[in-house]
Amino acid sequence: MLEHGGRLRRAAQQYGIPLDGWLDLSTGINPSAYPVPGIPLSAWHRLPEDDDGLEAAAARYYGSDALLPVAGSQPAIQALPAVLPGKRVSLLAPSYAEHAHAWRGREPHWFGGYGAAAETAVDTSDIVVLVQPDNPSGQLFERNRLLDWHARLARRGGWLVVDEAFIDTMPEASLAPEAGIDGLVVLRSLGKFFGLAGARVGFVFAPAAVRRQLAEALGPWTVSGPARHAASAALADTAWQAQARTRLTTGGERLARLLHAAGLGRPSGPSLFKWLPTPLAADLHDALARHGILVRLFDGTPPGGALPAVPPSLRFGLPPDETGWQRLEHALNGCAPERSAP
Amino acid sequence: MLEHGGRLRRAAQQYGIPLDGWLDLSTGINPSAYPVPGIPLSAWHRLPEDDDGLEAAAARYYGSDALLPVAGSQPAIQALPAVLPGKRVSLLAPSYAEHAHAWRGREPHWFGGYGAAAETAVDTSDIVVLVQPDNPSGQLFERNRLLDWHARLARRGGWLVVDEAFIDTMPEASLAPEAGIDGLVVLRSLGKFFGLAGARVGFVFAPAAVRRQLAEALGPWTVSGPARHAASAALADTAWQAQARTRLTTGGERLARLLHAAGLGRPSGPSLFKWLPTPLAADLHDALARHGILVRLFDGTPPGGALPAVPPSLRFGLPPDETGWQRLEHALNGCAPERSAP
Repeated sequence: MLEHGGRLRRAAQQYGIPLDGWLDLSTGINPSAYPVPGIPLSAWHRLPEDDDGLEAAAARYYGSDALLPVAGSQPAIQALPAVLPGKRVSLLAPSYAEHAHAWRGREPHWFGGYGAAAETAVDTSDIVVLVQPDNPSGQLFERNRLLDWHARLARRGGWLVVDEAFIDTMPEASLAPEAGIDGLVVLRSLGKFFGLAGARVGFVFAPAAVRRQLAEALGPWTVSGPARHAASAALADTAWQAQARTRLTTGGERLARLLHAAGLGRPSGPSLFKWLPTPLAADLHDALARHGILVRLFDGTPPGGALPAVPPSLRFGLPPDETGWQRLEHALNGCAPERSAP
Repeated sequence: MLEHGGRLRRAAQQYGIPLDGWLDLSTGINPSAYPVPGIPLSAWHRLPEDDDGLEAAAARYYGSDALLPVAGSQPAIQALPAVLPGKRVSLLAPSYAEHAHAWRGREPHWFGGYGAAAETAVDTSDIVVLVQPDNPSGQLFERNRLLDWHARLARRGGWLVVDEAFIDTMPEASLAPEAGIDGLVVLRSLGKFFGLAGARVGFVFAPAAVRRQLAEALGPWTVSGPARHAASAALADTAWQAQARTRLTTGGERLARLLHAAGLGRPSGPSLFKWLPTPLAADLHDALARHGILVRLFDGTPPGGALPAVPPSLRFGLPPDETGWQRLEHALNGCAPERSAP
């Protein structure tokens, strides 16, 4: 299993700052999570069933009912290789490492965004896997380009797998509304935009046969009753969604400005995080940690196998409140390599 | 996937009785579920981590820390065949059908409780799987007999897999405290005794190597944050547990008396349900349903393959309150084939 979590605990020990003294920007999760309503006891008590409105709320939110609820993207990522046949697999890299881990038995090839390698991957692969927008690079593929890639793959019986974990602030970029056609699998999750990473709820959009095989592989009752209840409410709450989209978009722009103003260049990434490649990543990570601010460090270490390394870089999540923003700005001004003119 | 759930909905349609008009005794779930405390927003928000006290609370409750939290027994049942090697697999039958379904690729053999077939299974199998107490038959194996079976299996490098989903009212019968030794896997769940079937929380007790492989197969974050919170509270609440054990034991005895008094013989089964083999099962099921009481019918149909059928029988869960008890008694008196003398 790849390592996840525990970073905040380790940082707390290493820097001698208690857990509750940290500004944790190490995830890309919306810091203002959906305010989950009270959970009826029946949701805890009874086995979860399909007639509770979750599928219908999801179909409206995502624009397609060719969906299967799953316990977050992770089990779908792990189960897809058993369901999608094909020898030659190409993955966007560097990217979210769980995809490469899931397909490791198929000895995947790699491509790095647009370019000749991507076009070759599309024309020679049985399966192409990418994250849109990418994590951590933030790369955003044009929707029409992805539709072209899908068409070329599907024509040969191939598959395009698109993990859209961070796409909710730009729903117009999503391929989920196209779901159901052969050769397309889209993964969505309530973890990031809705801030419900602990709930373990996501959806696979795919043709019926793929959904059936995934459902068989993952088994019954994969999403807990309380999580189904919370997710149904979140997916139906269009007022909260609109307000969150505005708030996150504003926050993402502010974060990009703040990093730029601190002399750190122009970061990429969706509203929920900003990504900053810099050879000084480790030093900056350390300097911020001394201020009790944890960001996600990619130190450039090759992950092993043929998988390309994420270049030395930092990923910043959004501060939860004005105090957090001020604290980040102050720390950046104190430790950034140079300051731009105000 | 095997069929689960939906029975109440179908009965409501078939008998023209609205959903909320039913006394649903078709499950073996404690009708007085653990009163889950409020869930902190952080449990919804953050990815679940291992340091929240769940493992420690479980180790105290079950008497062993050789455990892995899983999202109910079901994913463990499905994942075990990939982890436990061995060609010859023997399963208790008839029993909970998901075990047979999980091992179907290994063409399992069957044994029917104590007897020559069971002893042969132990001495010739690589893996023996049973449910203790059994569902639906209620068969309870002597603990010492199971320890003897385990020893004989382990000596040859074999495995005994014991699903203890319904054992919580008789914890002294559990093999979980022995966990960690080679050749033993025990499954526990919070679904039945704690009445938290919707939470999807269970535990696998097994040697470290088996737990590692299961964890790798099931992936990270399998139990949701809110469910971890609820389960930690339930497992630590010894006062509630004691009261529930008393209440369920009393309820189980009352249910057995009531069925006997209605001329239906002496049912078997643990406190949480009573099982009644009878050639009139289908008729009784229908008669009770006309009173708006749903019990679980096993109609004797062979499930296919070589799997032995559950004989024609009914499984009764416990009514939730005195009104439910009275309603059940009244209905039984109106539809049972004959009445015993009072």
